[in-house]
Amino acid sequence: MATISLQTPRRVAFVDITAQVEDTVRALGVTDGIVVVYVPHTTAGVTINENADPSVRADLESVLGRLAPEDLPYRHLEGNSDAHVKASLMGSSVNVPLAGGRLGLGAWQGVFFAEFDGPRRRKVHVVALPGPAA
Amino acid sequence: MATISLQTPRRVAFVDITAQVEDTVRALGVTDGIVVVYVPHTTAGVTINENADPSVRADLESVLGRLAPEDLPYRHLEGNSDAHVKASLMGSSVNVPLAGGRLGLGAWQGVFFAEFDGPRRRKVHVVALPGPAA
Amino acid sequence: MATISLQTPRRVAFVDITAQVEDTVRALGVTDGIVVVYVPHTTAGVTINENADPSVRADLESVLGRLAPEDLPYRHLEGNSDAHVKASLMGSSVNVPLAGGRLGLGAWQGVFFAEFDGPRRRKVHVVALPGPAA
Repeated sequence: MATISLQTPRRVAFVDITAQVEDTVRALGVTDGIVVVYVPHTTAGVTINENADPSVRADLESVLGRLAPEDLPYRHLEGNSDAHVKASLMGSSVNVPLAGGRLGLGAWQGVFFAEFDGPRRRKVHVVALPGPAA
Repeated sequence: MATISLQTPRRVAFVDITAQVEDTVRALGVTDGIVVVYVPHTTAGVTINENADPSVRADLESVLGRLAPEDLPYRHLEGNSDAHVKASLMGSSVNVPLAGGRLGLGAWQGVFFAEFDGPRRRKVHVVALPGPAA
Repeated sequence: MATISLQTPRRVAFVDITAQVEDTVRALGVTDGIVVVYVPHTTAGVTINENADPSVRADLESVLGRLAPEDLPYRHLEGNSDAHVKASLMGSSVNVPLAGGRLGLGAWQGVFFAEFDGPRRRKVHVVALPGPAA
């Protein structure tokens, strides 16, 4: 297991961490299998989506804001219930295939740290699980 | 693979199963890698979120109830379509890093069985996948 | 890693790929552990849900259409922002336990390719990760 640190820029932000995940995997010495990217926070998640047009992430932020608005009459009194809900909707981990030492992401896919209660200093764990080579 | 059994208390409930997962992993004999927690049901899921303030789970239940209300004009005639939808929104499995024999959950994270059509007797499968030690 | 190809039938469709996943896993030679089913596209996802009554999938399509309507004022100009959002809500991969050479799906569970911007030719990667036998 290796750990990436990052600083998120705003309350809600999808931060592209694909390059950091690739660099981390290279150091772990596993070439074929699955890479698990894990977020150990409860007001942030991780997702895989388009890395070309940033407006895709803006639309994702906007729809998640409609699904879990910041100002509902929540019971949790820290003012970040929307962030907890969005974290569970996106999920706390993603899997990425690893083949011949390279991430098996699709042509338009990137790995995004999904910040819902920033800006903050955050961590991401990366675990490489060996599987049979193709 | 090992299996946990549990009884859920209400129609909709997030049940903390972190301790059962930890106990189960200890018996599987894998110390480093990833633990997969898998729900073999179609009206329940699993998620990782805050284990300190129970109101976070209450807010999650409430928002999911807005997203998939019980009384929409659904086609499935068993009266639990909302439960199927919520199951897919939460997902049927989570990954948790395993390092030195311990779950790599964040300080505020717990693993929650997400019941959407209870109360029922339910099962959870736990698989430990070995990876390189840190 | 092995790859399944499929043709999706409509713009939005949940396509049962359970049999193809089972066939693919048999060829990979791993009998115990976890199977990861991975979608390398950004306007499609994968989920596990009921494989008996097709109306469950119809209800899932309908609720996702309420959560991310096709006609919101999105910023991404390709007309498929709803598809990107739905892809992240469902997720790009699922895990299925593998025990004694068989998928550990529950009695009513199937694996569904979730198309949100079809009809298209699509790919699904299947990776089998070895774990200790029960």
